[in-house]
Amino acid sequence: MSLDTPTQKPHDRLSATLADDLVAVNTLIRDRMASRHAPRIPEVTAHLVEAGGKRIRPMLTLACARLCGYTGDDHVKLAATVEFIHTATLLHDDVVDESEQRRGRPTANLLWDNQSSVLVGDYLFARAFQLMVEPGSLRVLDILSNAAATIAEGEVLQLTVAANIDTPEDTYLQVIRGKTAALFEAACEVGGVIAERDEKTVKALATYGDGLGVAFQMADDLLDWGGVDGGAKLDKNIGDDFRERKMTLPVIRAIAAGDADERAFWARTIGKGDQQEGDLERALGLLQTHGTLASTRDAANAHVDQAKAALTALPDDPIRDMLSDLADYVVARLN
Amino acid sequence: MSLDTPTQKPHDRLSATLADDLVAVNTLIRDRMASRHAPRIPEVTAHLVEAGGKRIRPMLTLACARLCGYTGDDHVKLAATVEFIHTATLLHDDVVDESEQRRGRPTANLLWDNQSSVLVGDYLFARAFQLMVEPGSLRVLDILSNAAATIAEGEVLQLTVAANIDTPEDTYLQVIRGKTAALFEAACEVGGVIAERDEKTVKALATYGDGLGVAFQMADDLLDWGGVDGGAKLDKNIGDDFRERKMTLPVIRAIAAGDADERAFWARTIGKGDQQEGDLERALGLLQTHGTLASTRDAANAHVDQAKAALTALPDDPIRDMLSDLADYVVARLN
Repeated sequence: MSLDTPTQKPHDRLSATLADDLVAVNTLIRDRMASRHAPRIPEVTAHLVEAGGKRIRPMLTLACARLCGYTGDDHVKLAATVEFIHTATLLHDDVVDESEQRRGRPTANLLWDNQSSVLVGDYLFARAFQLMVEPGSLRVLDILSNAAATIAEGEVLQLTVAANIDTPEDTYLQVIRGKTAALFEAACEVGGVIAERDEKTVKALATYGDGLGVAFQMADDLLDWGGVDGGAKLDKNIGDDFRERKMTLPVIRAIAAGDADERAFWARTIGKGDQQEGDLERALGLLQTHGTLASTRDAANAHVDQAKAALTALPDDPIRDMLSDLADYVVARLN
Repeated sequence: MSLDTPTQKPHDRLSATLADDLVAVNTLIRDRMASRHAPRIPEVTAHLVEAGGKRIRPMLTLACARLCGYTGDDHVKLAATVEFIHTATLLHDDVVDESEQRRGRPTANLLWDNQSSVLVGDYLFARAFQLMVEPGSLRVLDILSNAAATIAEGEVLQLTVAANIDTPEDTYLQVIRGKTAALFEAACEVGGVIAERDEKTVKALATYGDGLGVAFQMADDLLDWGGVDGGAKLDKNIGDDFRERKMTLPVIRAIAAGDADERAFWARTIGKGDQQEGDLERALGLLQTHGTLASTRDAANAHVDQAKAALTALPDDPIRDMLSDLADYVVARLN
């Protein structure tokens, strides 16, 4: 979040508009992550849930429900559901990635142990399913349970293609649709479903969420290289994906554009995981040479445009404008 | 399974009676664990799902539905759901316990990696939720999502009380109700719910499942010490719980009955995890001295009796008799 403009960020405007709903979501989250029998659970989850995540996913559910004129309470439950699913995947991701930091704080697997992260993640998944049953909508259950399966599938796919330098772009898209966009999409879609809006509206919300989610993840993958002009600010937060041998779009495109010598470099560093002093710098240099940081930003922007185009089918409302600005901001923050 | 009587085991009689349904369950399991995008998933799950588990949980759902006169197809979906939940917990348990063998074969975390076990477990959980939504019964969803939360809570509780030699018996009961009996109970209960039976019948099925599950886990914990006269067959399959410092009933009762010297022994071996040559033998000797292997069997039998008593509220039917025999067998196999 390096962009500081005089105007408020779209995320903060949404937060302010949905303030009461967000308070209700936070209360529900704290309430439902409690466990009478296992005090370790709230310890681990509080560490993560209260670590100041931006609550972007639950905010999407709230915003979409409100935008569709929803006046009940179930959007709060579904927003908390979505945050629980997200938090559970974070706990499991940190085990899988052997991460030591998240949001600038030590990860749960480091503070407690991998066992706690696995099992507390399972608990949050189960809590999410309990919560999503409560509104009594089978359609909502269908959407969210499908999203959960797609997320898990995306995570497994990511694991199996890691270190494979022949990963094609559409596999990358599959991975990020699974690990990120599926939950954005479902979070938006259920907002329209509980408001009982027509199919066209629900579909538009889903399309917005998908575009936003894909753009968000592409931007994230770009930020891992320091943004569009990464080299300028090479620091210790840069290159995690390279070290973990993840095949993200900037790398996939650089390999495709590279010569035999460059391919050998990627085969050694990502394919075999043999990384030495200076390799990260060379990798970054190759991305810059082939312009794949900029072209990844352009790809993200195309998904932003898709997201914004979908919004035109929705009611003209200040919330709609904030959602549109939010889509822009996902990529704008890179500059 | 050391008991070989001339008569067929109750489990095998149930299998034979429910043969067509079980074939449908197996087909559905294979079908739903497939993933178009992530071939790693069926590899990992096939290893586990097809490793010749006894399918006891799905069989309970099938048996209870049939016993209640159910004639539809949804019991097959729910049986597969229950097996998916069970398989997911096995995958995660093996990561948590750092196990290397399950059912006499190397575990998935050893054959692939912990990452695959965590993520494929998540995939199976999500698949379970997708499947349980399909019958369209909110009551079934409520029961199974509650069971999933109780399972996760029990697993976390087990983790947090491991190595705590002051663990009381009711905490142990809480742990095994969570990690084992909750799914047995739900598996039975949903059979009655989809058959639309009255509350009394549904409650009786739940009580049967709970009693069976508690007895099953107590028997399992006893088998980890080699059964009621454990010492006679001390071999390498004995003592995993001791090495993992799990507080199971035979140990809890031996500590309660022991003197200061014995307490110091447990504090060193289980409390601190400082285990030396000969400690397992001494631990087993203490359980025998205090008769806690036999008293654990008695405790298991009390739950078997509870399970069988509940069955009297159910229709007189050969399946009911097999369920009753199954409860007996859970403990009888120890002798």
